[in-house]
Amino acid sequence: MTTRTRIRSLGEHVGQEIRLCGWVRQRRSSGGKLHFLQIDDGTGSVQVVVKQGGVPEDQLEAARHVPFESTVIVRGLVKADSRQAGGCEVAAVEFHVLNAAIADFPIGRKEHGVGFLMDQRHLWLRSRRPQATLRIRAEIIKACRDHLDGRGFTCVDAPIFNSAAAEGTATLFPVTYFDRTLFLSQTGQLHMEAAAQALGDVYCFGPTFRAEKSKTRRHLTEFWMLEPEIAFGDLEEAMEVMESLIIHIVERTLTNCRGELEALGRDIGRLESCVAPFPRISYTDALTSLEGTEASIPWGEDFGAPQEDAISKTLDRPILVHGFPTAIKAFYMRPNPANPKVVLGCDMIAPDGYGEIIGGGERSSDLAYLEQKIAEHGLPKEAYEWYLDLRRYGANPTAGFGMGLERVVSWICDLGHVREASPFARTMARTSP
Amino acid sequence: MTTRTRIRSLGEHVGQEIRLCGWVRQRRSSGGKLHFLQIDDGTGSVQVVVKQGGVPEDQLEAARHVPFESTVIVRGLVKADSRQAGGCEVAAVEFHVLNAAIADFPIGRKEHGVGFLMDQRHLWLRSRRPQATLRIRAEIIKACRDHLDGRGFTCVDAPIFNSAAAEGTATLFPVTYFDRTLFLSQTGQLHMEAAAQALGDVYCFGPTFRAEKSKTRRHLTEFWMLEPEIAFGDLEEAMEVMESLIIHIVERTLTNCRGELEALGRDIGRLESCVAPFPRISYTDALTSLEGTEASIPWGEDFGAPQEDAISKTLDRPILVHGFPTAIKAFYMRPNPANPKVVLGCDMIAPDGYGEIIGGGERSSDLAYLEQKIAEHGLPKEAYEWYLDLRRYGANPTAGFGMGLERVVSWICDLGHVREASPFARTMARTSP
Repeated sequence: MTTRTRIRSLGEHVGQEIRLCGWVRQRRSSGGKLHFLQIDDGTGSVQVVVKQGGVPEDQLEAARHVPFESTVIVRGLVKADSRQAGGCEVAAVEFHVLNAAIADFPIGRKEHGVGFLMDQRHLWLRSRRPQATLRIRAEIIKACRDHLDGRGFTCVDAPIFNSAAAEGTATLFPVTYFDRTLFLSQTGQLHMEAAAQALGDVYCFGPTFRAEKSKTRRHLTEFWMLEPEIAFGDLEEAMEVMESLIIHIVERTLTNCRGELEALGRDIGRLESCVAPFPRISYTDALTSLEGTEASIPWGEDFGAPQEDAISKTLDRPILVHGFPTAIKAFYMRPNPANPKVVLGCDMIAPDGYGEIIGGGERSSDLAYLEQKIAEHGLPKEAYEWYLDLRRYGANPTAGFGMGLERVVSWICDLGHVREASPFARTMARTSP
Repeated sequence: MTTRTRIRSLGEHVGQEIRLCGWVRQRRSSGGKLHFLQIDDGTGSVQVVVKQGGVPEDQLEAARHVPFESTVIVRGLVKADSRQAGGCEVAAVEFHVLNAAIADFPIGRKEHGVGFLMDQRHLWLRSRRPQATLRIRAEIIKACRDHLDGRGFTCVDAPIFNSAAAEGTATLFPVTYFDRTLFLSQTGQLHMEAAAQALGDVYCFGPTFRAEKSKTRRHLTEFWMLEPEIAFGDLEEAMEVMESLIIHIVERTLTNCRGELEALGRDIGRLESCVAPFPRISYTDALTSLEGTEASIPWGEDFGAPQEDAISKTLDRPILVHGFPTAIKAFYMRPNPANPKVVLGCDMIAPDGYGEIIGGGERSSDLAYLEQKIAEHGLPKEAYEWYLDLRRYGANPTAGFGMGLERVVSWICDLGHVREASPFARTMARTSP
């Protein structure tokens, strides 16, 4: 198979004979003597012309009857053809069926329910929409890493097995670990704080887990999170990194994935309007702006989808909301010295109803305060002794944030539901394929 | 903090006044009037000179008494000094202690046992050896991704939550998933085969989990694995990708992490000799070469550390061993049509006793064979129906492999034990910090 040519690079071989492998996606026949097969190999799609005289009779018959989704090997001449996507087609001189599909492909041209499609995710991936989405996801992952690496951050992977919660005990997944019980990581942040004391600016980027019982279009039980931690950083700097990261993601996607965005029907102009600076508003001012609307809530309550949607609905780019009440935020967040009722934290809310895509801020470096908060939150102190050590031996103020990859992909692709932003989504009800 | 200068970029500010933040690592004093402080901010290390007349008296006193590992803020003038690492030092005009360490740092200059150091991993990270190791790890991660992205592979993350085993049921970690039991992923390969039918060449790179009870220097319960899958690829192509990947990792590390390799005392010349081509040998020939030695085993038995070490001990680069017995390999491996007793698979064994760093090969696309193997291995067939679908609807031969990140880091850094190759290692006995 080593000598095959990938379909995406056929344009470099016009006038040459090549060998390609792929799946038969469509066929148009003119009698028994001429067959136009659309063949896809994952890197692209091309029309292969199989005609009488061009190939032996048995191969012509094979091209006539080969079931859709079968794998084939074609040897043929690459011809320029401006009417074709990719600018060329292939005139077959050999046509072999490698493995014939043994049944009708479950996913046809008719409308399928999303439940059915998710059951068939391993096959649904071959369709245009998941293909485009996953290519954009890969580009976003690379954009995140390139951006942070370029700014001097060091990638440090956080552990998945943990002995305690970092974000509340209600959403932990217990694992049987030999003779003990451990929990799957909800965040790598606490470990990133340790790493930031050794390596300066760091980030982790891996799967995290929350046993959320909410069946919303924004929640997965398993999702990837990018978590930069800025040594000696403050809220202002964290907000700058958040904003420049998202700008970089948007630019890279627009530059390298325009075809995929078009395939998804994404409003590209709307994405192009997503430039710096992003608006900033305090939690308190945001609440004032909601007064008299259905989304109005009393001071002290956390945002839900109605508040996030109301605040972002007139915007063409994400908004940064800072200064949430201390009481509703995680134990490690640093209270604002000028007003300890609110923290030096910040959420980024995406436009068009995609909700929170980033949350972060400054971490408290006050040992006594953290001990008190750990007690208040009912967390097991012994599991946090190592984290408290970070304050005992030269506490440095750090700031950082977590970006939910699938939410960003969902917004960039305008998917409507986060489950399509994951190659193999996991929710309360879905654990296969 | 936003206006601080990172120590690694001090060289660009010679003759300028800057502000830096960091930890006090060492101090040398000349009476009460002159203090040389070595300050580290994670990006580098610099000597800060605090002297009488240069700073106010109270700050001079602070510099005299500040405990090691305390965080400080220094304003000062950057002066070129070729005797210093980094080529400069800082003459302080302001010296403030941000957070004083409240106790003696547990890790001193004396020798500590590894058990103690692993207990203190959150603090041990600040030492030169873990710092260098983790920077090399980050470079290797980036090298892997850049290499595969550059060859047209698409990154597709595999799910962690799974309903069945892929590599044997003995090493599964069960998770309580709401009202069910699921298992943590041992490999992303099966999902990569599905993705390769949609996107062509793909890879996943994330944590995988094996409940191995072996307490060896090569085993972690949680480790990162890079798993490329080559659509329509064969064993020959998989071996070429393995080799070029490892060559790229070695080259990138030698180019970008020479200082870190030196800090670790790595024999750099030995790493430089690791060039293509890597030797290749069949399992059967390897056994013949072991005859009469202590590592000799009967045909059909799997390699252990003694065999791996004996085969690689005279080599200066990794070796590829292909054609292992079908009976001892995973159910999905493709038997060699010319001799079905062995599979079209291959392991890469690193030199210097680092053992297997890569395993892979061709996957069987034969539906009936796979059904039979799933039954033979006692695996629950219903959990594999989606995987078998990949053979029902246009099976394509694929080949791929898994590279254990920590084993590669361990070999490149010559660490002796894989636990130091992970930022926060997890073994049978170790689950914190």
